[in-house]
Amino acid sequence: MSDTIQGLLSQSAKGIKPSPIREMFHLIRKPGMISFAGGMPDPDIFPVEQFHQGADILLEEGRDILQYGVTEGYTPLKEFLSRWTAPKMGREPSMDEILITSGSSQVADLLTRATVDRGDYVVCEETSFLGNTINMYNQGANFLTIPCDENGMLVEKISNAVDQARAEGKKVKFIYTIPNFHNPLGCTLSLERRKELVAVAKDKELLILEDDPYGCVRFEGDELPTLYSLDDAGLVLYAGSFSKILAPGTRVAWAIGPKDLIRTMTIFKQGVDTCTSVVAQALVYKYCQSGNLDAFLPKIVSHYRAKRDAMEAAFSKYLPKGEVQYVTPKGGFFYWLTTPNIRAEDLFQRCLEKKVAFVCGAPFFPNGGGEHSFRMCFTFASPEETDRGIKAMGEAMKELLAEKG
Amino acid sequence: MSDTIQGLLSQSAKGIKPSPIREMFHLIRKPGMISFAGGMPDPDIFPVEQFHQGADILLEEGRDILQYGVTEGYTPLKEFLSRWTAPKMGREPSMDEILITSGSSQVADLLTRATVDRGDYVVCEETSFLGNTINMYNQGANFLTIPCDENGMLVEKISNAVDQARAEGKKVKFIYTIPNFHNPLGCTLSLERRKELVAVAKDKELLILEDDPYGCVRFEGDELPTLYSLDDAGLVLYAGSFSKILAPGTRVAWAIGPKDLIRTMTIFKQGVDTCTSVVAQALVYKYCQSGNLDAFLPKIVSHYRAKRDAMEAAFSKYLPKGEVQYVTPKGGFFYWLTTPNIRAEDLFQRCLEKKVAFVCGAPFFPNGGGEHSFRMCFTFASPEETDRGIKAMGEAMKELLAEKG
Repeated sequence: MSDTIQGLLSQSAKGIKPSPIREMFHLIRKPGMISFAGGMPDPDIFPVEQFHQGADILLEEGRDILQYGVTEGYTPLKEFLSRWTAPKMGREPSMDEILITSGSSQVADLLTRATVDRGDYVVCEETSFLGNTINMYNQGANFLTIPCDENGMLVEKISNAVDQARAEGKKVKFIYTIPNFHNPLGCTLSLERRKELVAVAKDKELLILEDDPYGCVRFEGDELPTLYSLDDAGLVLYAGSFSKILAPGTRVAWAIGPKDLIRTMTIFKQGVDTCTSVVAQALVYKYCQSGNLDAFLPKIVSHYRAKRDAMEAAFSKYLPKGEVQYVTPKGGFFYWLTTPNIRAEDLFQRCLEKKVAFVCGAPFFPNGGGEHSFRMCFTFASPEETDRGIKAMGEAMKELLAEKG
Repeated sequence: MSDTIQGLLSQSAKGIKPSPIREMFHLIRKPGMISFAGGMPDPDIFPVEQFHQGADILLEEGRDILQYGVTEGYTPLKEFLSRWTAPKMGREPSMDEILITSGSSQVADLLTRATVDRGDYVVCEETSFLGNTINMYNQGANFLTIPCDENGMLVEKISNAVDQARAEGKKVKFIYTIPNFHNPLGCTLSLERRKELVAVAKDKELLILEDDPYGCVRFEGDELPTLYSLDDAGLVLYAGSFSKILAPGTRVAWAIGPKDLIRTMTIFKQGVDTCTSVVAQALVYKYCQSGNLDAFLPKIVSHYRAKRDAMEAAFSKYLPKGEVQYVTPKGGFFYWLTTPNIRAEDLFQRCLEKKVAFVCGAPFFPNGGGEHSFRMCFTFASPEETDRGIKAMGEAMKELLAEKG
C-alpha cells in the first residue's frame, strides 16, 4: 500500500481483519478441491427452474422493479414475510417492524452501526460466526464471550460478565446469539435458556441479535420458540435469511424488531445502499408467493439430513478412533470437530495438500482459543466427495499423529 | 423509542440524519403527485424487455448464480467493465482494481469506513449529493466545503482550506467530487480544474472520490477526461453505476481504484453484505454482454435531452420573470434553481398542496446554506406532468411573492 493511502486509513482499516471464509472462496473454487469450508448450500438442490419461472415478474412489473425501491424493502415481500414468519414471531409483525436487508450480515452490520462506538462490548458465544464477529470487530467492537455446551450458551454466566464489564466502565450494547443449529458449534439453545436469555437482556438492559439462518433446517425434534416470541420488553432483533432456504446468491434477508430500532437501521441503510436490489427482492417474492418456499423446505431438510448422516458415517469409517470429538447436530449446516492431539492449523495444511478444505477453529473465537477445533460444512460437497474427502482427512490425521509419535 | 434502546445507541445513531430524498419516496408514490424530487430515471424508457430477455441466465448458470459469490464481484461482469470502461479510465483496469458494489452509494460508504474516524474531515463541493454526505456525516465525518461556479468546484481554494484545517489539528482524508453534471448543481468541472484537482490531491496527500453516475448522460459538448485517467499518483477512486444508464432497481455499481484501497474496501464489504446480489449482477452482465448497454445509451441521452428542454421551456412559460436563476445543464438529471425572493421551504409546502414535489436546497449544504435554492429532476415526470407541475409551481411562486407584498 502506498504511504499516502496508509496514512489516510481509519483506525478500523488499520487494524482490519479479513474473513478467513471469504478469503477461501477462491481456494474452494479451484478444480479438484473438496470443500467442507464455506457454509454453502448444495447447488444440486437449488430450485433453479422454479426460481427462473418467476422471472416474468421482470416483464410484468418491470417499471417498478427496475426503479429505486423504498429503503424499507419491497412491500409485497414484506407482506409475505409478515404472514410467513408469524408462527415463529408469535404474531404478524407490522410493516414498520420489518426491514429487508442485503443478506443477514447486513442486519448485524446495521445493528452494530446503530449501537457500537469504538471500544464498546458485544456479548456473544465464546465460539461464534466469524463473518459477523469480524465485521463487528472491524467497526471497533470488543467481546464478552460466554462458553457453550450442547444446549447452547451458558446463559447464567452473562449477568456476572456484564456486571463486571460495567464495573470496569465498559459499555455493553447487545447479545449476539445463534440459537438454532449454531454456526459453527451445531448446538441449539434449550427452551429454559431461551427464557433466561430474554430475562437477562431485560434485566441488564441489552438488546439481543437473534441470528437465525438455520432455524428452518431442522432434521429432528420439535421447533423451539424464538427469542423474539418470548420477549415482552421489545429488545430482540431477529435476523432471517433466504440464503439457506432458497439461495444465497439472491442476497435477500430480513430483520424483524422493535420499530424504533428498525427505523434507525433503515436510516443507516438509506446511505449505505439505498435499498436491497429490487430485482432480487421481486424474484424472491415471486418464488415465495407461488408456494415454492413451503413446498421446497421439506426437500432441503431431507436432503441435508442425508448429507449429515453421510458425513457422520464417513467420520466413523475413516477418522482415527478416539481422536475426534463431536456432537451430532440436529439441523443446520455444520459439524464442529475437536482433535485434542492435533492442531487444526497443521491438519488444514496437510488436508490442503490432499485437496480438502475446511475452516480452522481459531477465527471463530473472538477472544482467542480453538486451536484444536475446526468446522466442517456437510451440505456442499457431493456424497462421493464427502467420502473421499473424509478419507483423505483421516489419512492426514494418522500421518500427523504418527509424526508426533 | 424506549429508554433502554435510546441508552444503547451509538454516537452516530444518536445524531443520525435521515436522507430527505429517501424519506420522500413514500410521498412521491402518492397518487396524483407530480415528482421532480428523487433523481429517478424515467420508467418509460427502462429496457424492460431486453433486461428480461437475459433472464435465461438464471436457468443456464443457476448453480453458480444462486450460490454465494466472491466479494470482489461476478467475474464476467468485472471483465466486461474492464473493457467497457477502458476509454474513460485510460486503460483496462485489472481485476484487482475493480470492486462490484451494491449501488455507488456503497463505494462512498466503504471508502468512508476505510478512511474516516469520527471527527475527520472530507473536502466536498459546498453543495453536494446529500445521500453521500449524510451517510458520511452519519459515520462521524465533518466537511470542508468549497464553493462552485458553472465550471464546478473552485479547486484553487482547496489547498488553503486543507492547510488551515491541518494547522488546527484536523485530519482531512479525501476530496468527494461529482465532476460531470453535478448533483444537484448540474455543472461540470472544466479540464483545467480537473488537472488542478488531481495535482492538489497529490500535493496535499488526499484521496479523491470521483462520483460519476451521470458521465454517460451527456446532451452536448465533448466528454472530458476522468480524474482517474489524469492521476499518476494512484489517489483516485472512481465510482460508476448502472442506476442511470440501465436501472437503479438492480443496485449494481462499481468502484475502480488503487488496488490496495480496493482490497481494504473489499474486506469491509465481506462483513457488510458478503457480496452484491449475484442474481442482479448476472442479469446486468447478460444485458450488457448482449450489446444492449451501448445500443441503449443514445436513446437515453436523446430522451433526457428532450425532457431537459421541455422543463426549461416550461420554466420560461410559467415561472415569474426575473425571479428564478439557473444554468442549463449539459447532461445529467437536474436543474438547480435559485429564488432570491422566495424561501425554498415555503415554496415546497405550497407546491405540495398543489401535489408537486421537489427537493429543497438546504440539505445539499453539509455546512449550511441553500435556503433559497432547490433541485428539480427533469428525467422522471412525463412531459404532460412536467408542464402541469411547473405551471403549478409558477402559480405557487406568484402567490408567495404576492403574499410577501
